[in-house]
Amino acid sequence: MDINVGVIAASGYAGGETVRILSFHPRVNLNYITSRKLIAKYFHFVYPNLRNISNLKFEEYSVEEAKKKCDIVFLAVPHGISQKMVPELLEVGLKVIDLSADFRIKNERIYQKYYKKKHVIPELLKTAVYGLPELHRNEIKSTNLVAVAGCQASSAIYGLYPLIKEGLIQVSNIIVDSKTGSSGAGTIFNESSHHPIRANSIRPYKMTEHRHTAEIEQEFSLILKSIGQENKEVKVGFSAHAVNLVRGILSTSHVFFDESMEINERILFKAYRTAYKNEPFMRLIIQKTGIFRLPDPKIIIGTNYCDVGFKLDNHMNRIVVLCALDNLIKGTAGNAVQCMNIMCDFPETTGLEFPGYFPS
Amino acid sequence: MDINVGVIAASGYAGGETVRILSFHPRVNLNYITSRKLIAKYFHFVYPNLRNISNLKFEEYSVEEAKKKCDIVFLAVPHGISQKMVPELLEVGLKVIDLSADFRIKNERIYQKYYKKKHVIPELLKTAVYGLPELHRNEIKSTNLVAVAGCQASSAIYGLYPLIKEGLIQVSNIIVDSKTGSSGAGTIFNESSHHPIRANSIRPYKMTEHRHTAEIEQEFSLILKSIGQENKEVKVGFSAHAVNLVRGILSTSHVFFDESMEINERILFKAYRTAYKNEPFMRLIIQKTGIFRLPDPKIIIGTNYCDVGFKLDNHMNRIVVLCALDNLIKGTAGNAVQCMNIMCDFPETTGLEFPGYFPS
Amino acid sequence: MDINVGVIAASGYAGGETVRILSFHPRVNLNYITSRKLIAKYFHFVYPNLRNISNLKFEEYSVEEAKKKCDIVFLAVPHGISQKMVPELLEVGLKVIDLSADFRIKNERIYQKYYKKKHVIPELLKTAVYGLPELHRNEIKSTNLVAVAGCQASSAIYGLYPLIKEGLIQVSNIIVDSKTGSSGAGTIFNESSHHPIRANSIRPYKMTEHRHTAEIEQEFSLILKSIGQENKEVKVGFSAHAVNLVRGILSTSHVFFDESMEINERILFKAYRTAYKNEPFMRLIIQKTGIFRLPDPKIIIGTNYCDVGFKLDNHMNRIVVLCALDNLIKGTAGNAVQCMNIMCDFPETTGLEFPGYFPS
Amino acid sequence: MDINVGVIAASGYAGGETVRILSFHPRVNLNYITSRKLIAKYFHFVYPNLRNISNLKFEEYSVEEAKKKCDIVFLAVPHGISQKMVPELLEVGLKVIDLSADFRIKNERIYQKYYKKKHVIPELLKTAVYGLPELHRNEIKSTNLVAVAGCQASSAIYGLYPLIKEGLIQVSNIIVDSKTGSSGAGTIFNESSHHPIRANSIRPYKMTEHRHTAEIEQEFSLILKSIGQENKEVKVGFSAHAVNLVRGILSTSHVFFDESMEINERILFKAYRTAYKNEPFMRLIIQKTGIFRLPDPKIIIGTNYCDVGFKLDNHMNRIVVLCALDNLIKGTAGNAVQCMNIMCDFPETTGLEFPGYFPS
Repeated sequence: MDINVGVIAASGYAGGETVRILSFHPRVNLNYITSRKLIAKYFHFVYPNLRNISNLKFEEYSVEEAKKKCDIVFLAVPHGISQKMVPELLEVGLKVIDLSADFRIKNERIYQKYYKKKHVIPELLKTAVYGLPELHRNEIKSTNLVAVAGCQASSAIYGLYPLIKEGLIQVSNIIVDSKTGSSGAGTIFNESSHHPIRANSIRPYKMTEHRHTAEIEQEFSLILKSIGQENKEVKVGFSAHAVNLVRGILSTSHVFFDESMEINERILFKAYRTAYKNEPFMRLIIQKTGIFRLPDPKIIIGTNYCDVGFKLDNHMNRIVVLCALDNLIKGTAGNAVQCMNIMCDFPETTGLEFPGYFPS
Repeated sequence: MDINVGVIAASGYAGGETVRILSFHPRVNLNYITSRKLIAKYFHFVYPNLRNISNLKFEEYSVEEAKKKCDIVFLAVPHGISQKMVPELLEVGLKVIDLSADFRIKNERIYQKYYKKKHVIPELLKTAVYGLPELHRNEIKSTNLVAVAGCQASSAIYGLYPLIKEGLIQVSNIIVDSKTGSSGAGTIFNESSHHPIRANSIRPYKMTEHRHTAEIEQEFSLILKSIGQENKEVKVGFSAHAVNLVRGILSTSHVFFDESMEINERILFKAYRTAYKNEPFMRLIIQKTGIFRLPDPKIIIGTNYCDVGFKLDNHMNRIVVLCALDNLIKGTAGNAVQCMNIMCDFPETTGLEFPGYFPS
Repeated sequence: MDINVGVIAASGYAGGETVRILSFHPRVNLNYITSRKLIAKYFHFVYPNLRNISNLKFEEYSVEEAKKKCDIVFLAVPHGISQKMVPELLEVGLKVIDLSADFRIKNERIYQKYYKKKHVIPELLKTAVYGLPELHRNEIKSTNLVAVAGCQASSAIYGLYPLIKEGLIQVSNIIVDSKTGSSGAGTIFNESSHHPIRANSIRPYKMTEHRHTAEIEQEFSLILKSIGQENKEVKVGFSAHAVNLVRGILSTSHVFFDESMEINERILFKAYRTAYKNEPFMRLIIQKTGIFRLPDPKIIIGTNYCDVGFKLDNHMNRIVVLCALDNLIKGTAGNAVQCMNIMCDFPETTGLEFPGYFPS
Repeated sequence: MDINVGVIAASGYAGGETVRILSFHPRVNLNYITSRKLIAKYFHFVYPNLRNISNLKFEEYSVEEAKKKCDIVFLAVPHGISQKMVPELLEVGLKVIDLSADFRIKNERIYQKYYKKKHVIPELLKTAVYGLPELHRNEIKSTNLVAVAGCQASSAIYGLYPLIKEGLIQVSNIIVDSKTGSSGAGTIFNESSHHPIRANSIRPYKMTEHRHTAEIEQEFSLILKSIGQENKEVKVGFSAHAVNLVRGILSTSHVFFDESMEINERILFKAYRTAYKNEPFMRLIIQKTGIFRLPDPKIIIGTNYCDVGFKLDNHMNRIVVLCALDNLIKGTAGNAVQCMNIMCDFPETTGLEFPGYFPS
């Protein structure tokens, strides 16, 4: 094995999925997983899919132990806690891939606005790299702190990146209507996650002020900057629905273009192909026939693939963009491992090429 | 019983639900149900929920039989066929409540654009009344031809009617993101309705050019006309997703207001309360606490209720409007019976007050 | 209204469903619902299906208040608590319909074996009547304490009653394989009811020693006694699975007959018809054609109907018996109200004839 | 690559899953997949999970082409057709792994009884090897015709094999109550697979005379023979329910032991451990704590693992045995590939070690 890695807070869904992927990664030695509540229990006690496959046991966390055992750690603690732990991990020389929201936002003020508290170590916000491999590959290569993108934010960004990059759409009135499964809310059970209440519902749970709005707008602004349009103000209306699924996100973005633009399908195709043709996990799904003409979470769950498609609406200068991904893989743990591969100069797809099964 | 009624093409989901409701309606005698394929079979052969409850048998359709047995007929044939049958039914003096799309569109040209063929009896388009009780009560009272509103169109219209009526939003860039269950596609099975393929999917099946766009825009234009704003052009971007449910629709509308408008929650509340406070089946759902803060199809399936709610987005002059209804009841059969109640001068809620159960 | 009624602990699923049914019952005045945690909140805060329909508010429980406001109370507290409350309610002259398990078992020793504690008022065990209307109609008429049958027990008993009554099967090796939805576990959320964990599972949660075994065996013994076979020892192997549904129970019973018996379909039909032909809510489902040949919970959820069917297995002297019911209605609240109708000499179906909808 | 393989009728669920697994198998070159209806279409047209992953196209079938391109073929045609194709494939020197039911039954008369027609090449029934790797490893090694076991039969056999092998249970009254997802019925859509009808149902679809009874009884008889108890007559009551899932089978077997046997948990444990301790894909699941104490299909879908567990019922000399597997993998395609590994002397787990994800 080339490197030693650890997962801090490995019992939650983000950490657990990271453990699963790393357990099959041919270049790493996963030898440290922690959980405060499950010390000395087997990982497969809470992830029974890994019985007979993983013999890892949860350990107690300490920075010394992490330093001793790991080159890179994946940090899957809740946001708010991550920012307290990252400094000490960096200090002992570890590289950190943080799955929480703590280091995604560059602007301290915006962080505070959306997360309703002061950041404890704002100076690190600037050095952290936003962990979306396709957009920040070069910065990821050389950082020691990655802030893995939010799952719903990833879906919105992957869907619209090509259009913004090519300057094809209005950026002041972007609508993202997101549909997400129940695993996105994590392992903490409550009345709203109670099966009789959560099942069979299509619950509009966060129509405005969703925290992922901050990272989506930040990334869109960066893309605009990269094409010399930093003067344009980005406004994203992000609305999230909890749908009747355990896994998967579908984001439907409704964006407008100026009448003057003369947008057609060919132009859109080109934008998407240009952006993603060399990306191993991005698939453009636009079929004229068959059942699966546009992205659907059903097709990608269990994988690190992200399916993107679009439909031009000549009725009203609108483009509808669909993006489907697995919230815990391409939306979290898969992207985290893809970032690790980049940081370690492994082939980027290492350990991530497992397909989904169909029908699921 | 006050009147005799029949249901033509009673074996489909729209017709079947109409039969169920009429079977429990205290003022009508349902004594004629037809199906081409199931002649002489019991209704409960295909609707086993009504075993021991209904002894109706399917008969063959003929206009003479309909005339002999009914005062009003509900027509649940597919669109395209309805326009061929309605004239003869009207001619023999029957009142017709048509569940198909054939008479919803007033403008022949727009009908042709969306339905891709010439209407066989365009002169009836103008006399038919759009069957949305809350918007067309007076016309319904005195017509002999009702064209019951489309299920997804109903959801969009119920959600936005109060805002348009009060002139609060831009009407040229209305986005309606609709989520609908599988029963909306009817009884005809095919590859796309095959359970292994349809289950667990969130399928973006009609992102643009959805036929319901036509009736939504027609109704919004009529509302504008009623407030003296017929000069404004309505443009609705309607996008429909098939979600992992059998029943229910949630439409999420994203609409914008002019910065100059100074919209606040109080104004929005007032608009909705004004529009719906006397409507027996329209419920305004905006809770500050609890699990059920906004409409969710889970709450209304099995009922004739329609739940409406909204969220003001100060971030970008947006209002998000949610509307949930049961596609086969408030979206079809329930509204059809409500129209009948109006036509017959029965109390409007007669036979329609059954509640849903929870958890469902 | 003929009588005043109350529901104690009305916020749980059993109590909540009782409130819903009683709210539409034409002969009763429901004017007292209690909950310790939700005092002064509207019932529709937790049962949003009843918004605009019920204006009831939760009150605090006291026996004085119950006495003042009610003739009959439905008690929906957890088992263990019920036995502490029933004596005082009876003492002030109220009739009690208890939805808990506390008074179902006649034999104190067996109660103790299955519920792992001493009963606090064992003398009441003998006077309480087991609340299964079809089997104990006469005793229910004249009692002041009904112990409504358990939902899974009801399903097993309804399925096998006709066969045991006619002495057709071996009673020492009865297998009942039960499949039940998540609402059966009540409103208390925990890790096992967390949607990501509970959804998509078929969990064998109680293969042996299920408490309902006690009431099933008790009832079967009583039936045997009624036909002069009290010497036979009943043994039921009851195994319960939590399936991927919110509502509904299907019990599949596998029972054997002696080779000497010469059982055929005609004999079985006759047994079921004899037992249930006059029962308004029991339906015999044995179709040769169509999709719905045997009972399926899908067909009866939301109703007080119970569907029963069977299949004779000539391969091995086995009869497979299927019984489907809604755990919260025919399995709990519906039967409770049916018992009340009997106690009050109302027509037994009053307030209970609502049909289900299809497809659900 | 070591060998060349092909999949005949690769568009169905059994064939499709075989293609997916073989596409990632490191020792084989999959270079021939056929479908009558989809000639020249990409495999990923119907299996969109493999877009960008597989570039295989469907070809027309011919025995010459198969011979030219393959060393081994997987035959996934419907039963009845397989028996017509196998002889010519064997004749040209190919090894055949047949996924249909055509060669599972050794006894021509029993084949005829269950499949209602004469077998066209009964002499091959004896030479075919039943494709359950754990039970027939040695015969599989040296055969050129494997008849992969039925999915539901596999689940029943895996569950009970250790108990029968040790002579612990009565074999004349074995009850297997099976719960299976909708993918088990294949790709052919019909009214009963229509989503609105199939979803949310627990349908008892084959209570008696299920064809898998034949292979289960055959295998149990062979096990008895291996322990010198061929005189005992095996009778299995196999009953199959279609549950609200796409994938996965849970079989719950209820078996009895003689009172004289003095069965205890230790003895049962030992039987299972003896049978499966060296089996890479068989897992014994009996936990005292946690959520996942017994097998549940949720845990194993998407994998080649089979989880087995049991519960001793002291109440009535009963053992309840649970067995969960993925009907399309361990129940079909996974076992087929495991057989191939054995035939080719590859390590038996090659290409089959992919884990499932959790929560699914």
